[in-house]
Amino acid sequence: MSSLRSWLYIPKNSHFSLANIPFGIISTAESTEPRPAIAIGDCALDLKVFAANNGFSALSTVQPHHKVFSEPTLNAFAALGRPIHSIVRKYLQNVFLDDTPFPEVLKTNPALQKQALVPLKELQTHLPFTIGDYTDFYAGLNHAYNAGVVFRGPNNALQPNYKHLPVGYHGRASSVVVSGTDIRRPKGQILENPAAEKKVPILASTRKLDIELELGAFICRNNAMGESVSVDEAEQTLFGLVLLNDWSARDIQGWEAVPLGPFLSKSFGTSISPWVVLADALEPFLVKGLENDTQILPYLQEAREKNVYNINLAVTLKTSSSESRSTICKTNSRNLLFSFPQMIAHHTVSGCPLRVGDLLGSGTISGTSPSSCGSLLEQNANGKGSIALSNGENRTFLEDGDEVRLSGFCGEDDVLVGFGECIGKILPSL
Amino acid sequence: MSSLRSWLYIPKNSHFSLANIPFGIISTAESTEPRPAIAIGDCALDLKVFAANNGFSALSTVQPHHKVFSEPTLNAFAALGRPIHSIVRKYLQNVFLDDTPFPEVLKTNPALQKQALVPLKELQTHLPFTIGDYTDFYAGLNHAYNAGVVFRGPNNALQPNYKHLPVGYHGRASSVVVSGTDIRRPKGQILENPAAEKKVPILASTRKLDIELELGAFICRNNAMGESVSVDEAEQTLFGLVLLNDWSARDIQGWEAVPLGPFLSKSFGTSISPWVVLADALEPFLVKGLENDTQILPYLQEAREKNVYNINLAVTLKTSSSESRSTICKTNSRNLLFSFPQMIAHHTVSGCPLRVGDLLGSGTISGTSPSSCGSLLEQNANGKGSIALSNGENRTFLEDGDEVRLSGFCGEDDVLVGFGECIGKILPSL
Ligand SMILES: [Ca+2]
Ligand SMILES: [Ca+2]
Ligand SMILES: [Mg+2]
Ligand SMILES: [Mg+2]
Ligand code: NI
Repeated sequence: MSSLRSWLYIPKNSHFSLANIPFGIISTAESTEPRPAIAIGDCALDLKVFAANNGFSALSTVQPHHKVFSEPTLNAFAALGRPIHSIVRKYLQNVFLDDTPFPEVLKTNPALQKQALVPLKELQTHLPFTIGDYTDFYAGLNHAYNAGVVFRGPNNALQPNYKHLPVGYHGRASSVVVSGTDIRRPKGQILENPAAEKKVPILASTRKLDIELELGAFICRNNAMGESVSVDEAEQTLFGLVLLNDWSARDIQGWEAVPLGPFLSKSFGTSISPWVVLADALEPFLVKGLENDTQILPYLQEAREKNVYNINLAVTLKTSSSESRSTICKTNSRNLLFSFPQMIAHHTVSGCPLRVGDLLGSGTISGTSPSSCGSLLEQNANGKGSIALSNGENRTFLEDGDEVRLSGFCGEDDVLVGFGECIGKILPSL
Repeated sequence: MSSLRSWLYIPKNSHFSLANIPFGIISTAESTEPRPAIAIGDCALDLKVFAANNGFSALSTVQPHHKVFSEPTLNAFAALGRPIHSIVRKYLQNVFLDDTPFPEVLKTNPALQKQALVPLKELQTHLPFTIGDYTDFYAGLNHAYNAGVVFRGPNNALQPNYKHLPVGYHGRASSVVVSGTDIRRPKGQILENPAAEKKVPILASTRKLDIELELGAFICRNNAMGESVSVDEAEQTLFGLVLLNDWSARDIQGWEAVPLGPFLSKSFGTSISPWVVLADALEPFLVKGLENDTQILPYLQEAREKNVYNINLAVTLKTSSSESRSTICKTNSRNLLFSFPQMIAHHTVSGCPLRVGDLLGSGTISGTSPSSCGSLLEQNANGKGSIALSNGENRTFLEDGDEVRLSGFCGEDDVLVGFGECIGKILPSL
């Protein structure tokens, strides 16, 4: 891929190189209806306009489906299946190649360029999918261990089931929002003194507002209720990935979550990055995940050894008092004990129906050192410590006005396959 | 209501008396497109046909919205809000009154009767809503206590949070199916000997397949993310109720559910009855719920004392070996510690957005005697006992071929406001 050159200007460090071609949903001031697009360099290619102007007429397998590019979400495009996603992605790479076999489509068509290429700065992004169900897994082994140490000590940090299955819970689909959406600090029941004999909660704004750095995966195939997806088929069910911030209120979580799990402590907002990087684009960056020292059951055993992605992840924080931005976490998404295909195989082993547009969260991704941890809970031992920011402030949990940005990319130099950013700012409680 | 007489024949013990007017989605062999209807006596009134033939032209507030009756779900009708639901229900009651002020609309219009009235036996029912999110609460105090006794003994049966808030978890919207849909016995990870030192699960079909007798409530108003719904406003958010069977695999649940709650043990299928009884129709049957001996926070305190419904509930079981049907549970929905308005107020206190069509489960409804318990887990102490069926068989948990029916009604004699039935049959694992 490193030799691919485009006739379009693509900055050297762009997350949206010709090797990427991520899909999203955009609108502009002039044309406010949300519609599909790809990101390339500093631009988006409006696929509705592109398709309407015969952009896909050279592609006989895709042309009959061109209406999917007039939809307000990617659900219909995703439902066409991975072989079609591959064809569309490769074709669009070809269209943008300096040496394109289809120059008349866009390279030598300035009228369509003007209509269909929109600077990223001038557009708005929207949720890429109508999300039927959102499941959040817990496959970041280091995170699960670190959080377990905080609450139960090192000897019982991991529950007995942890290495046998990808632990997960049903999340709240209605609370998933696109990057840039502000997050209101939630109120809820909080037990101020968990050690007290008599447990009497108060209603208050959370004092332990946290982030969780995760990957999100979108599903592109339905399985019928009662039918399972095998771990080897599961790849075909995987449309692509985004960055995901599973905002969490630790004090609300502590009081509400026994015995049925996290509920309101998670469902006040979950942010995702707007550009979905196709599973195809990530294939070259597959690596081996964390070693599982436990024998897993056959339905979770993958034929391939490289099963997770080598994505460099970072979290930065900007407070309301300065423009300075501190990096508060650097880690890598190889820190997962289970892959997305394993999560899909497990999710459906019971016959639970997945549907196109469903979202799976990976679980918080953490390394082993404090500054590689994807949550403040871990970095600060649930409120016992604090981290120093570059502007001289420090943080135990998030404060009002704080803006958190997740970013992630694969590759090096001028062939990045990146996710862009996932941004959210904390608004004070109402 | 007891004096209401219809020109249409309504059997004396019908769940769908003139005092009810529940809404659902139907199709027929001749007209396979799903569309809204009401149930009345042994018939459904096809609201699409009724509206298209000027059925609503006398109703100036409803006529501009008549397209909601051509939708394949009730979402658009529900979104019109409770004042409109009231108007439509009262109008339809009037249309069917013997002494109707609108005889020309249907009573003396045999052509439209022929077109719009369909015998219930001849139609198919569908999911009444597109369900964005499904939340299952746990507000059946006796159930929570009974289940707690089974797992932790009587002294720690209830968790410290139980009486302070309606405990709940996010469920799986994609797994909600309408009555009559078969349920495939799920496979999953099971720990055969939970007491063993070394915890090594197997993959197997559940051996502890159970029911949970619940009420389901549909939401008819969106709240914006970050905004709460007060407990007194919450009534306006409540469209209506159905019966709900939260099929549960107890052995899968036991192994998977710590620390993030039930997941695959619940999401292989959840059945609901097809006819949604409007909150308006249930108002006359409000009674006081179970006494809460704990002081609850102000945001959960209701102005009204009568806050739950007096619905007579029953569960019957038919096995594959005979036609005989055993009643395995009789109870009443007043056995709830929290009302639906309290659940809504709690669900949104964090700013979690509810949307039109969302479904809330009440939690399993149980009385205090074994035969009033809404799950086999309680009746048989998680597998230690068994119940005798009328055909001489007995059951600890469900077996393949078993058919479970929930039923429920309010009122007496000829003025029942009923839910009909919620039926599901167990298919063997694939
Ligand atoms: Ca998470
Ligand atoms: Ca339940
Ligand atoms: Mg979240
Ligand atoms: Mg269920
Ligand atoms: Ni959901």
